[in-house]
Amino acid sequence: MSISPPLLTLTTDFGTQDSYVSQMKGVILSHAPQARLVDLSHELPPQNVLAASLFLEQVVPTFPNDTIHLCVVDPGVGSQRRGVAVEFPSGRFVGPDNGLLTHWLEREQPLNVVELNQPQWWRQPVSRTFHGRDVFAPVAAAWCRGHKLDELGTAAQNPLVLLPQPAVVRTDEALTGEVIAVDHYGNLITNLVATDVEHFAAGHHVFVEVGRQTNCKIHACYADVPNGQLLALIGSSQRLEISVNCGHAAQTLNATTGTPVCVKPAG
Amino acid sequence: MSISPPLLTLTTDFGTQDSYVSQMKGVILSHAPQARLVDLSHELPPQNVLAASLFLEQVVPTFPNDTIHLCVVDPGVGSQRRGVAVEFPSGRFVGPDNGLLTHWLEREQPLNVVELNQPQWWRQPVSRTFHGRDVFAPVAAAWCRGHKLDELGTAAQNPLVLLPQPAVVRTDEALTGEVIAVDHYGNLITNLVATDVEHFAAGHHVFVEVGRQTNCKIHACYADVPNGQLLALIGSSQRLEISVNCGHAAQTLNATTGTPVCVKPAG
Amino acid sequence: MSISPPLLTLTTDFGTQDSYVSQMKGVILSHAPQARLVDLSHELPPQNVLAASLFLEQVVPTFPNDTIHLCVVDPGVGSQRRGVAVEFPSGRFVGPDNGLLTHWLEREQPLNVVELNQPQWWRQPVSRTFHGRDVFAPVAAAWCRGHKLDELGTAAQNPLVLLPQPAVVRTDEALTGEVIAVDHYGNLITNLVATDVEHFAAGHHVFVEVGRQTNCKIHACYADVPNGQLLALIGSSQRLEISVNCGHAAQTLNATTGTPVCVKPAG
Repeated sequence: MSISPPLLTLTTDFGTQDSYVSQMKGVILSHAPQARLVDLSHELPPQNVLAASLFLEQVVPTFPNDTIHLCVVDPGVGSQRRGVAVEFPSGRFVGPDNGLLTHWLEREQPLNVVELNQPQWWRQPVSRTFHGRDVFAPVAAAWCRGHKLDELGTAAQNPLVLLPQPAVVRTDEALTGEVIAVDHYGNLITNLVATDVEHFAAGHHVFVEVGRQTNCKIHACYADVPNGQLLALIGSSQRLEISVNCGHAAQTLNATTGTPVCVKPAG
Repeated sequence: MSISPPLLTLTTDFGTQDSYVSQMKGVILSHAPQARLVDLSHELPPQNVLAASLFLEQVVPTFPNDTIHLCVVDPGVGSQRRGVAVEFPSGRFVGPDNGLLTHWLEREQPLNVVELNQPQWWRQPVSRTFHGRDVFAPVAAAWCRGHKLDELGTAAQNPLVLLPQPAVVRTDEALTGEVIAVDHYGNLITNLVATDVEHFAAGHHVFVEVGRQTNCKIHACYADVPNGQLLALIGSSQRLEISVNCGHAAQTLNATTGTPVCVKPAG
Repeated sequence: MSISPPLLTLTTDFGTQDSYVSQMKGVILSHAPQARLVDLSHELPPQNVLAASLFLEQVVPTFPNDTIHLCVVDPGVGSQRRGVAVEFPSGRFVGPDNGLLTHWLEREQPLNVVELNQPQWWRQPVSRTFHGRDVFAPVAAAWCRGHKLDELGTAAQNPLVLLPQPAVVRTDEALTGEVIAVDHYGNLITNLVATDVEHFAAGHHVFVEVGRQTNCKIHACYADVPNGQLLALIGSSQRLEISVNCGHAAQTLNATTGTPVCVKPAG
């Protein structure tokens, strides 16, 4: 164990106008005064669990392995959904078991999963609408202080929730997926990963079709095409992205999450 | 006193596009290099002092008692309004005396209030438009370093400013208040607190009327009703809230701050 | 050198919805676990290098001199533009050499400039689209850990990039500049600095003309005029600003970046 406490990251869909995130920070720092908080994002799409799962997939590998990732995107708060704490080889997770780990579980298997059922760790009384503050924050703080995972809950009896993901379809003529996220710059992030595309495109030029418009080739970086021109590239998360150099592809193409994207060998 | 310096939180309506918040951080960290800054929100409604007061009420109780809360929502900057530093049992405050403590003062009385009138602590020259950077930040930093409150100013001669708040009206037939905030999810937060509502509703089912529409019962959590259905509940701040499960109540009801909300016994 | 590591600030145009900023934080904290990160802004205008340069000018002087400022507004990522690390008397910079230092270089000369050409410090493989994560973050982390500037790269052979800036024109009758930024409150920040204006206005009342509308005098603070009234003042960054007290000057005047602003002696 390191001398200083592990990092504790915060990821929510709470926005930053309201006091929800701050209340969680207060609870954590009251229970673990030495915690080193790191804000990841509080602007995730509201109540979109799959988007949060994708976010975690992209971020977790960059952090130290003992980091605790507290993630609360929790449309089912107060219902029967479980809270869990999970230890993976590359990081630790605290949050609702509602599919937030869907992408992470594709990459590695958990070492240990506990169901959060030990109310002695919780902030009382527990609100029915804000387990982020009353359950997940104090549990993460206790873990951060050095308590063991099996003190925080008991071994989970059921597997973690996995959400269905949009399919990738491969034929001899084409590889078809869809847009799964639109970033701040309007880049369209797809569910086609680099290894799929490279395999398909081996030795070929390829065209990428977005919606009904066929109009770009795969390049290496934005600056490979003139300003305002459409291109495809393998983005920094190893996914096929559709971009406009110094522009906004989502607006240009009127595309959004769910828009089909198809890769075909050039003419 | 703890070995590490107390936490120092930052709450403003400055937004995060401009450099104002960052300049305050720089000044604090230049004067108190070991300060442990915690961003609460910089997205409070511009120049809305009462909204900031409500925000502090919700956040302060979650933090350690020695935390310094630096809050700058300051439409009167450069005028005759005072700057103050205040010690409460549950936290410490630095900022303008313009009503930011309205809600906090309902909960507890200050132990000590000083008026910030000792320019030797300030960043010179003091801008007429940015006391957050030039007065409040260096004063908070000095307090954080361990200077005493009575070094930072002299005992305040006048009481702290209290802002008028919307009234709650109670009759035999109904309890009437209004929406005082709309959160990130579109939930309508009212000025009806749990103890009011519970007392009124003791032994009764109740209906909640928002604006002219009467259409929801009080439930325990969002998931108690189907997606898209309106409900009322006691939110995590112990206030009556109007919500749409997995929806946006403010848009659904065309309601906003000031919209009347009325609780009545069910038919 | 201080006992604790220097502060490391983060400034980007990445927004906070996506995982880009978080990935940079993860890389820095993996390479320099004791780094003390300070978020400045991630909401800078997308791909607007000059706006980011102005932001740095306003913020850097408030921070300790050994602070490392990591700034990534990088429309040319993956092209031939250099990455640099620069030591100034008042701070240290890591980022692309694309004009981000334009304003800073007006104030002081660098002590040392290196070109980032030592891949052993970088995260491999280096993405063509995200040098913030793969080049600048690990280099800043290494600098933060105490490595010397000349380990991180070799002495730069060419001068740092300077971007053209809008001109200030002075005649006997008028001083003319333009709006260079609109802040969160709608205040119009101009390229007319205090010393210019004071000199011009010495002993005179002056009028400020924005676009085609002539209608305000220079005052000392917002509260000097009634709510809703237009005024000019020397803002906290020592620039002439056009404001509406408790209002939004940009909307009121239909003004934006590039709108001409002219100062004339009062009739």
